[in-house]
Amino acid sequence: MNEAGVAPVKALVFDVFGTVVDWRGSVAREVSLAARRLGVETDGFALADAWRGEYAPSMQRVARGELPWTVIDDLHRAALDRLLPRFGLGAMDEAARADLTLAWHRLDPWPDSVAGLARLKRRFVIGTLSNGNVALLVNMARHAGLPWDVIFSAETFRAYKPDPRTYDGAAAMLRLEPAEVMLVAAHNNDLAAAQARGLATGFVARPTEYGPEQARDLHPEGDWDVVAPDFLRLADALGA
Amino acid sequence: MNEAGVAPVKALVFDVFGTVVDWRGSVAREVSLAARRLGVETDGFALADAWRGEYAPSMQRVARGELPWTVIDDLHRAALDRLLPRFGLGAMDEAARADLTLAWHRLDPWPDSVAGLARLKRRFVIGTLSNGNVALLVNMARHAGLPWDVIFSAETFRAYKPDPRTYDGAAAMLRLEPAEVMLVAAHNNDLAAAQARGLATGFVARPTEYGPEQARDLHPEGDWDVVAPDFLRLADALGA
Repeated sequence: MNEAGVAPVKALVFDVFGTVVDWRGSVAREVSLAARRLGVETDGFALADAWRGEYAPSMQRVARGELPWTVIDDLHRAALDRLLPRFGLGAMDEAARADLTLAWHRLDPWPDSVAGLARLKRRFVIGTLSNGNVALLVNMARHAGLPWDVIFSAETFRAYKPDPRTYDGAAAMLRLEPAEVMLVAAHNNDLAAAQARGLATGFVARPTEYGPEQARDLHPEGDWDVVAPDFLRLADALGA
Repeated sequence: MNEAGVAPVKALVFDVFGTVVDWRGSVAREVSLAARRLGVETDGFALADAWRGEYAPSMQRVARGELPWTVIDDLHRAALDRLLPRFGLGAMDEAARADLTLAWHRLDPWPDSVAGLARLKRRFVIGTLSNGNVALLVNMARHAGLPWDVIFSAETFRAYKPDPRTYDGAAAMLRLEPAEVMLVAAHNNDLAAAQARGLATGFVARPTEYGPEQARDLHPEGDWDVVAPDFLRLADALGA
């Protein structure tokens, strides 16, 4: 859609893990460092992938009510405790586990993220709309220099995306109509859920989020309002 | 308290109206402009004071359950509609009333606020903890250049300060102990409520918030951890 077509958009809310930051490379690096401190060689990417693989099932347990409301920091920690023995890291002590869990607060941005957000912020309110908890997103923004106007988290709404309360809630708190808010994400399923609630949609592919063999989310799979290869081109497309 | 004494503090959350921004001067200016457009001379400061005077009773009606949860934007608008006839402005049309209500989104900072916050942000997570709604605080931050890491609002917790849920909620969302969070405010009653929940406290007097005849909150009235005349001196006191 051209600039005129998205003129009503006043705010952009961003998926974060994978869309704004490279969780896989960042977590793998910290896993490898933690393993080396234990004198163990392990595949940091494999543990990062396995850890991320626990993410959706953990949230679904919360969504189904099998777990009480639990923030991602705590889901991450529980998953790490399950995974460490499988990677030869069962001897990791409490302090190291707590610190490694905070690797998710220290994720590095994709190369275009900070510059693109700075441009987009001049024209639009920019915020997160992430399943990460508030403290995680705040610490990440400070670490990575992400210039958010506002942090919306699953924790804000006590519901995980793709629950409609998250998309509806962000628009309501901004006092905007859903069509005035665009979700920007690298994930077609997130965009589909947002579009179903009336939000505008922007797809930015991150073709190495899941590593060099990534087979998902390489292309837009819906009628998204804007498709761009990175945040700078997104800013171009939105006239920012 | 000296720097060593507040060393555990990791985040500062700020009262906003009066503490960070000069609501009275900003609102009075916009009232005067709106009146002039109607061809009416009115006392902008008097209307600003009357408008602000409706604030606490309105929130108390929500807190007592006499009103359902209502954000400040809507409380402001209802109060404006009640007040305009008294100030000879009953003829103001819908668009002008809606715009004037948004004057509260365009409040100007005190002269030291932006520079002080920029310094404090280098060492601490900084956020709002305000009875203003999220959209108001986001728009104000963009208008005034306030570099918040996070926006905490009564709307986040669906409770108005001094409800304990607001102070407790900010610390919990930051994943910090209450003593690791300092409320900074120009109002002794807000600080007393925060201290009762275990937060650290910083008092910055704003002796003209209520105009040249201000008789309240000129001095600290509690055992606050830090007392400073402005945000730059607050940064000095906190080693930021």
